[in-house]
Amino acid sequence: MAKKLKHPKDSFISMTELVLPNDTNTLNNLMGGRLMHWMDIVSAIAAQKHSNRIVVTASVDNISFRHPIQLGNVVTLNAKVTRSFNSSMEVRIDVEAEDIPAGQKFQSNSAYFTFVAVDQSGRPIDVPECIPETEEEKALYDGALRRRQLRLILAGRMKPTEANELKSIFDIKE
Amino acid sequence: MAKKLKHPKDSFISMTELVLPNDTNTLNNLMGGRLMHWMDIVSAIAAQKHSNRIVVTASVDNISFRHPIQLGNVVTLNAKVTRSFNSSMEVRIDVEAEDIPAGQKFQSNSAYFTFVAVDQSGRPIDVPECIPETEEEKALYDGALRRRQLRLILAGRMKPTEANELKSIFDIKE
Amino acid sequence: MAKKLKHPKDSFISMTELVLPNDTNTLNNLMGGRLMHWMDIVSAIAAQKHSNRIVVTASVDNISFRHPIQLGNVVTLNAKVTRSFNSSMEVRIDVEAEDIPAGQKFQSNSAYFTFVAVDQSGRPIDVPECIPETEEEKALYDGALRRRQLRLILAGRMKPTEANELKSIFDIKE
Amino acid sequence: MAKKLKHPKDSFISMTELVLPNDTNTLNNLMGGRLMHWMDIVSAIAAQKHSNRIVVTASVDNISFRHPIQLGNVVTLNAKVTRSFNSSMEVRIDVEAEDIPAGQKFQSNSAYFTFVAVDQSGRPIDVPECIPETEEEKALYDGALRRRQLRLILAGRMKPTEANELKSIFDIKE
Amino acid sequence: MAKKLKHPKDSFISMTELVLPNDTNTLNNLMGGRLMHWMDIVSAIAAQKHSNRIVVTASVDNISFRHPIQLGNVVTLNAKVTRSFNSSMEVRIDVEAEDIPAGQKFQSNSAYFTFVAVDQSGRPIDVPECIPETEEEKALYDGALRRRQLRLILAGRMKPTEANELKSIFDIKE
Amino acid sequence: MAKKLKHPKDSFISMTELVLPNDTNTLNNLMGGRLMHWMDIVSAIAAQKHSNRIVVTASVDNISFRHPIQLGNVVTLNAKVTRSFNSSMEVRIDVEAEDIPAGQKFQSNSAYFTFVAVDQSGRPIDVPECIPETEEEKALYDGALRRRQLRLILAGRMKPTEANELKSIFDIKE
Repeated sequence: MAKKLKHPKDSFISMTELVLPNDTNTLNNLMGGRLMHWMDIVSAIAAQKHSNRIVVTASVDNISFRHPIQLGNVVTLNAKVTRSFNSSMEVRIDVEAEDIPAGQKFQSNSAYFTFVAVDQSGRPIDVPECIPETEEEKALYDGALRRRQLRLILAGRMKPTEANELKSIFDIKE
Repeated sequence: MAKKLKHPKDSFISMTELVLPNDTNTLNNLMGGRLMHWMDIVSAIAAQKHSNRIVVTASVDNISFRHPIQLGNVVTLNAKVTRSFNSSMEVRIDVEAEDIPAGQKFQSNSAYFTFVAVDQSGRPIDVPECIPETEEEKALYDGALRRRQLRLILAGRMKPTEANELKSIFDIKE
Repeated sequence: MAKKLKHPKDSFISMTELVLPNDTNTLNNLMGGRLMHWMDIVSAIAAQKHSNRIVVTASVDNISFRHPIQLGNVVTLNAKVTRSFNSSMEVRIDVEAEDIPAGQKFQSNSAYFTFVAVDQSGRPIDVPECIPETEEEKALYDGALRRRQLRLILAGRMKPTEANELKSIFDIKE
Repeated sequence: MAKKLKHPKDSFISMTELVLPNDTNTLNNLMGGRLMHWMDIVSAIAAQKHSNRIVVTASVDNISFRHPIQLGNVVTLNAKVTRSFNSSMEVRIDVEAEDIPAGQKFQSNSAYFTFVAVDQSGRPIDVPECIPETEEEKALYDGALRRRQLRLILAGRMKPTEANELKSIFDIKE
Repeated sequence: MAKKLKHPKDSFISMTELVLPNDTNTLNNLMGGRLMHWMDIVSAIAAQKHSNRIVVTASVDNISFRHPIQLGNVVTLNAKVTRSFNSSMEVRIDVEAEDIPAGQKFQSNSAYFTFVAVDQSGRPIDVPECIPETEEEKALYDGALRRRQLRLILAGRMKPTEANELKSIFDIKE
Repeated sequence: MAKKLKHPKDSFISMTELVLPNDTNTLNNLMGGRLMHWMDIVSAIAAQKHSNRIVVTASVDNISFRHPIQLGNVVTLNAKVTRSFNSSMEVRIDVEAEDIPAGQKFQSNSAYFTFVAVDQSGRPIDVPECIPETEEEKALYDGALRRRQLRLILAGRMKPTEANELKSIFDIKE
């Protein structure tokens, strides 16, 4: 049986959250941990849509938080699968915050989460391939290999010298 | 006035959480996003203890989740500052999960979060230096520079070719 | 100064929620009250986007709940302003539920909430007009007057005999 | 076997809630959605008391919110079944808010929720008849038929021309 | 100005809670800590009603938990002030649990909480006297002195030899 | 088979909580009920660690709250088993609060909770003996008998005249 194919748009999902008092620190700014909690939920749903399976969070890439998000702001999180590898999927999340009464909107940050699809007993199970369509999706698809090598190195499961894709970002001639 | 000095043990903090139904997915496993929420709180407290300031999450390094943590498990999160840079601090968090009735305990994962100390108007403010004492603390202190370069590169704020510390992990001869 | 105009699409907002244990009754079905809580948040954001103001819930029209939504389902709530009246706005919300692993998706229900835009002291303040564009938006715009008369009658603020628009649904010849 | 009879007072239930920060919007007023969540819980308990069954929310009638309820206020919700129809029950909820330190108390609003009693597999099951005792209960009992016709029409399950009870409120001569 | 008088019935308050998944342990029983949280809220409201002031919890008397309360049960908490002492008030709370579908209802436990009325800067402020009316209220009023002495002794603020009221329960002849 | 022995340090557990908006009253102070909820969780974990069993809260001794704990404070709760009796265990909890930016730290209060270890059907089951090691632990171990007699008397399960241990605190000669 041929493996099922899916496109990034098939897993696209948009989630909106209103920043409430308990989500904020004493400066009335959204706490990073709450934002990561939301990122995990939206990206898990994207991975579910791609795989039609229960999914578990496998890893989170480096995230940086630049602009403070305020109490009362509306946070929009857009997620879609960028690439799949056997039973795992990489999901990109873009976060945007908006102070609607003030008419201000800004890109907050973006992140990559990876998920593994599992069956009812929690064993990994293969997922459809992810075929990029737009130019932006193709760039994300290509970058996924590089990010995966970095993840494997940081988790101590690949030797840096074997990370051919990754070397390019360090501008290394072999 | 001489800058204040602190040791990693001064910021050490241990937090315990019980995994409740709303923290779990349909397999009754702790959701990654909830764990990151707890990691953010415990590491923010460590950074507060080091700096005696309000702190905001600046970034989170790559985290990988290996073992599922179950409903009813007790999760222990230990955090301490590893190194400070002007107004920012790197905090290491070690997560351990325990199924007490079953007498099982395991290392779940570890992570690095960075925080910036701010004054009441949210402007960055200098923090005490962090002086490592034990061998393990010295290794964490040294590694902090490498991790910082990786963060700056991934955030597009440093060229890979300038990341001298980081190059060592890719075994690159100059 | 001419009054500002907006279109329904300007206030469109999509919110996604995952049904967690605390959202469910003892049959593991989403409780109606939790769903209404989410409906209120998403429609308040739509009204905020239309008015760029703080908004307060003024009324909720009759809602009927047909299909049970299960624990673990993903609920999508789409909202947009259908029409505005001075300081008030009617918002239509469409709710859809999905059991992703089972590949099942269904329309759950729809509802109309009205909001009043207020200034910082809580006083009502005028909002932009809402100009429908598509056929569906025009039908919603026309129906808004009828629904408004029903609301006013049910709140005891209009005599049934004055509700000319509404009479049409009772097929009444004058 | 004769069908069991119950009175409205048998299902009477009073619930009290304290308005906490996370229940409020940026004006420190209770959000309508949170209030509806509480209304759903209290009326579901009233319907459970009438039927001694698990119940599911079937519909909510038009609700209007007049007075803002403030952070720190105490909200009292009183509910009782007004009438039953086979497996469904109509519940009336009266909401009162109190600013205790200020010695101020006011009627906030009232609403009608309907519930269906179900067995363990979720199938509708007959409930006891509801026999009104006081004058007020008799008026609510009579009105229940009119409200039910309006619900059926709004849900598209009854033709307006068949709604004999309802016509009276539009002062229509036949 | 004569001091204001109030009766226990003036502060009476009834609160109802539905036991949800997150309130329970792995045996699906309500956790004691959640029940105490509810007891504190209901008794604080009773103390507010007596004093028309902001109140802070001063102490909690010995509580024993006898019967497990199950997931899905309805918990009713009734509270009223039994006696006041300058700025402090003792509140008695009676807790009852009900499995409505099973038609089972039982007394769970009772407890005494004390509160201090404070002004806006948090300083203690006198409260009305509490005049008991029924026999049961008079017995609670008399017992309040004995319970107060036990509290003071346990808090190390009274010598046991001075606790004349309390001695009676130990059957001591002087 | 010889009964298993454990030491207080085997059950020691430290839990840290950050005071968030929803934990506070209108004076921005931590509500007593939320603190008791945390005390229950930390002491249940200590009792689980001592017994390696599921545990249920049996009783709570008199608690007095002296200093207000503020929004944004860090609360540390340390718990350990002091003594066991067949299937029950007494746990002592010490609570400390810290305003980290202000560099202020203070003892808030301490309390004794008792738990019963149960098997999967909820029946009491014997737990290991608790052998004190330090002087402080021995004093807590000795006091446990006195506190137990007070609990039994207050629960009406022991006559005051039989409470030999307890009499000592009332300085009574026999």
